[in-house]
Amino acid sequence: MRLTTDARGVYPIAPTPFLDDGRIDVDSIDRLSDFYLACGATGITVLGQLGEAPKLEHAESVDVATRMIRRAASLPVIVGVSAPGFAAMRALTREVMDRGAAGVMIAPPNTLRTDDQIVGYYAQAVAAIGADVPFVIQDYPLTFSVQMTPGVIRRIHTELPSCTLLKHEDWPGLEKISTLKAWVRDGTMRPLPILVGNNGLFLDYEMERGADGANTGYAFPDMLVDVVRLSGAGRREEAHDLFDAHLPLLRYEQQPGVGLTVRKYILHRRGLLHSPALRAPAAPLTAAARAEVEHLLSRLARHDARARV
Amino acid sequence: MRLTTDARGVYPIAPTPFLDDGRIDVDSIDRLSDFYLACGATGITVLGQLGEAPKLEHAESVDVATRMIRRAASLPVIVGVSAPGFAAMRALTREVMDRGAAGVMIAPPNTLRTDDQIVGYYAQAVAAIGADVPFVIQDYPLTFSVQMTPGVIRRIHTELPSCTLLKHEDWPGLEKISTLKAWVRDGTMRPLPILVGNNGLFLDYEMERGADGANTGYAFPDMLVDVVRLSGAGRREEAHDLFDAHLPLLRYEQQPGVGLTVRKYILHRRGLLHSPALRAPAAPLTAAARAEVEHLLSRLARHDARARV
Amino acid sequence: MRLTTDARGVYPIAPTPFLDDGRIDVDSIDRLSDFYLACGATGITVLGQLGEAPKLEHAESVDVATRMIRRAASLPVIVGVSAPGFAAMRALTREVMDRGAAGVMIAPPNTLRTDDQIVGYYAQAVAAIGADVPFVIQDYPLTFSVQMTPGVIRRIHTELPSCTLLKHEDWPGLEKISTLKAWVRDGTMRPLPILVGNNGLFLDYEMERGADGANTGYAFPDMLVDVVRLSGAGRREEAHDLFDAHLPLLRYEQQPGVGLTVRKYILHRRGLLHSPALRAPAAPLTAAARAEVEHLLSRLARHDARARV
Amino acid sequence: MRLTTDARGVYPIAPTPFLDDGRIDVDSIDRLSDFYLACGATGITVLGQLGEAPKLEHAESVDVATRMIRRAASLPVIVGVSAPGFAAMRALTREVMDRGAAGVMIAPPNTLRTDDQIVGYYAQAVAAIGADVPFVIQDYPLTFSVQMTPGVIRRIHTELPSCTLLKHEDWPGLEKISTLKAWVRDGTMRPLPILVGNNGLFLDYEMERGADGANTGYAFPDMLVDVVRLSGAGRREEAHDLFDAHLPLLRYEQQPGVGLTVRKYILHRRGLLHSPALRAPAAPLTAAARAEVEHLLSRLARHDARARV
Repeated sequence: MRLTTDARGVYPIAPTPFLDDGRIDVDSIDRLSDFYLACGATGITVLGQLGEAPKLEHAESVDVATRMIRRAASLPVIVGVSAPGFAAMRALTREVMDRGAAGVMIAPPNTLRTDDQIVGYYAQAVAAIGADVPFVIQDYPLTFSVQMTPGVIRRIHTELPSCTLLKHEDWPGLEKISTLKAWVRDGTMRPLPILVGNNGLFLDYEMERGADGANTGYAFPDMLVDVVRLSGAGRREEAHDLFDAHLPLLRYEQQPGVGLTVRKYILHRRGLLHSPALRAPAAPLTAAARAEVEHLLSRLARHDARARV
Repeated sequence: MRLTTDARGVYPIAPTPFLDDGRIDVDSIDRLSDFYLACGATGITVLGQLGEAPKLEHAESVDVATRMIRRAASLPVIVGVSAPGFAAMRALTREVMDRGAAGVMIAPPNTLRTDDQIVGYYAQAVAAIGADVPFVIQDYPLTFSVQMTPGVIRRIHTELPSCTLLKHEDWPGLEKISTLKAWVRDGTMRPLPILVGNNGLFLDYEMERGADGANTGYAFPDMLVDVVRLSGAGRREEAHDLFDAHLPLLRYEQQPGVGLTVRKYILHRRGLLHSPALRAPAAPLTAAARAEVEHLLSRLARHDARARV
Repeated sequence: MRLTTDARGVYPIAPTPFLDDGRIDVDSIDRLSDFYLACGATGITVLGQLGEAPKLEHAESVDVATRMIRRAASLPVIVGVSAPGFAAMRALTREVMDRGAAGVMIAPPNTLRTDDQIVGYYAQAVAAIGADVPFVIQDYPLTFSVQMTPGVIRRIHTELPSCTLLKHEDWPGLEKISTLKAWVRDGTMRPLPILVGNNGLFLDYEMERGADGANTGYAFPDMLVDVVRLSGAGRREEAHDLFDAHLPLLRYEQQPGVGLTVRKYILHRRGLLHSPALRAPAAPLTAAARAEVEHLLSRLARHDARARV
Repeated sequence: MRLTTDARGVYPIAPTPFLDDGRIDVDSIDRLSDFYLACGATGITVLGQLGEAPKLEHAESVDVATRMIRRAASLPVIVGVSAPGFAAMRALTREVMDRGAAGVMIAPPNTLRTDDQIVGYYAQAVAAIGADVPFVIQDYPLTFSVQMTPGVIRRIHTELPSCTLLKHEDWPGLEKISTLKAWVRDGTMRPLPILVGNNGLFLDYEMERGADGANTGYAFPDMLVDVVRLSGAGRREEAHDLFDAHLPLLRYEQQPGVGLTVRKYILHRRGLLHSPALRAPAAPLTAAARAEVEHLLSRLARHDARARV
């Protein structure tokens, strides 16, 4: 099952579950997988920016991806393979594609500056991993400091046929979606599905601008699925009502650094992770922050019963 | 009226009003000033990051500050004097202090990296502007790329007696407030009022962590005043209810770049600015974005009548 | 006398001379001007990156430029007008052009990233200063963190007819010169003179790649003039012999930060500056560094009598 | 043979030799090793910044290090283990230490900013690799954008007993050497050998400031050995004469990006590498650049017979 430009819906970014002692928690991988499937996700991404990939040894990365691929048999699984060198990127890509991955996600290294450097980097990455492997552009300037204009994305997408999906996390990014989708409509760019990230902070309006879904890790992917569905069905105010109810928590979870700790805490409270633990090094959730998350959950529960955890 | 460490409440960041032809709109400066006073602000900041200061010639900057200082007679006015060189910083500081400014705000240049460089920069700035001028540290790493630890802020505040206020815009920043306020409580740092920025995106919990108010430019400063008041009065859920109703719009306005355009549009729709114009160069609000802002206002108006514009 | 694309030879970057008490040393401006003229310079640049421009108040900047323009009557004087905002850039440009400047030099702000942002910035700058003012692109990625490909430079030069000169300080930069000059030769770009900076660290081979001269502040501009002349006359090994004799000192002077202090010290030792002082804030030359400079001068004097100071 | 704070002399940074088809050239590893030993090196570093480490798969990295360790039996071999995650760093460290490495070199990731972040990073790295593994701080702000003050280096060195060596590549860096060595002399810091990098661009004066040698990859490590020896023996002018003769080439080789290509070309011309090839992706040496290198070699050969290649 290869990723194609028909991709749409919600591809949650799966965290990597750990036990309290730092070992990988394989049972929770299964639980997450089952949950994503049950709540209507159309794909899964593992080993993304918030999958603690740099803390995994190579063999562990392959194991995590393989476990998810096997369990989520009916869902395409994208594997983050961003690496400082093409050798490591190629090695991981080959192993996970052999094991059934649908494609890989590649973020640009934060040393890239000019348009040509960015386009050239993706060309080199494709040369390394093979032109037959569908890949996802991760466009996340806030974290990577690499700014891709719509024109650069079009160049990558046009020059590299294996470019299949845009994980859009630019901020602000609404006009970028409008521009890219207009190019597809007027035929100056071949189709490119856009799934939004940034924890979904603008999912409400991004869907209205033409996004095809979400590819992010918010602890309530079931909400993301609902908003995408309601928005697609033209039930605009219902989509906004649900989204707005989640926005206070979603914003809280989107904080750099501490965000993943919050996310894992909530997934643990929802019964999806055996432990909220991050692998070391990691800062703990302070008592004040934990109380704030509980407060946010209790307020959310008034509007969305799924927050009664 | 000099700024002191007793500062608290809401100091709106005033935009610089322009007419459609690019001239400064002095009437709207008066209107903004009257509005801030009426809605309960306890101070005003002009020529901040979103005051389009770099588009003003020196004489214009002095005029804008002077007009605001005179009109808002009973409110302390802080003037942003950040500049690439100390000569320009000193020149502007002297002129506005002579005209009655309460203090100045200084952001670190984005080339600073080490702790010593940051502390040294503020020491040099004080040497330039004079040790008798109260100054505000602007701690805004997202925009300035300068990261100040709590320890660095304490060093600046301890070594430079004219350090009077922290405009806190770190992100994430909740633990930073807790750390600094704990130091004041245990006596290892002299009192330092903290007013939060970042468009108030975390104002709800920042107040609970010990912040003394807000110093930001959200187009509904009256909401900021209410939340600060409710939070201070222990009416926690009311504070959150009001804040949450504004969060969708507040988040929309906080987008880098386009945010100021949105803010001026809303202030114009509220009747506070004669024109929503930014001085060139500036990107216009697209039709799609304008429709989104109107949609956000209409949804907000269900909860807060002030959004019926 | 307006700058044209016929510019070539050596345009020294003049330091701003100060007296020990921080006042501008106007006599030394005259002395520098006379010296540049006498040693064969074909133009002068003032208020450049190493002209301590940010330490000058606006009126001082105008005075320094005006003094140099008047004294160096027969030489075109370029004025650095880089500023954080277009208002200040326009104000300074107008005043110095009125007083006879040949053109202005504009460096890109270090927040620019994409090709479009860079081209757009120069378009906005031209809109601000006027399309009739010849301007110099300063391409100095090491200091400004802005990377301009040859293609971006061609876009700026093609879209903006007032683009007149490239101050080339990329590092490495030899291939960039070859690429741009090949475009001029094959007619895909209109003529663009290239004067090299970077303290001339690669002047020897840059001339052989097609550069038209130097635009930098090394304390022996007379050496730069000689190397440019010898290279142009095909006396290759003589050019290298002279250059290599200076390279140990030239490298020493090129150090970021301390470099200007070294340069002023040498210019003072050569009798061209009344005082080696930088305006505050500035770090002093340590005793060890001063001894190293004297050692370098004494070694250089074996090959070049001008170093006997 | 573990690295200790008695380290001094020249530790060349070995390039990773490749055959034209991209395979690792093991014979050339042996040839390099023999050459380093013969010319008086006191240690070797492999898989450094210019060892193309990111282009190697994990097993290849271990093989390269192991081959060098075995061949250079009497010399301590330091292995670069910088990695985006501690898991990969730990894995490589353990394998090479098991095979006889003397220690590892760790560069800070370019996302670090504050003093505490830098110190904390090294503490976490030591927690990952084990407190018994001697490590080298690589202080290279030009490439890594991480600025370590002398105070930060002292904190790392004091808090982490396995800190054993400083690879000093700050620029400018002369005062940093003076400061650190003064602290050792006055007893406020335990001994810390300093070997300089930056291609040795300031080796002449760095030795006079107290550096203990060089740890860089210039294609004439035999010159580095001579300069260190002459300088240590008080034969100052001889040291400078030799250094100055090499400076034109050394400067040329130090160019970012193209520098490694030049270095490998020269090592190939010297008969030490079977092929000058870099592993893909890599830009080729242009004809103009090759001619420049040959010209530099021919000029150098007048002063140093080793350049007759």
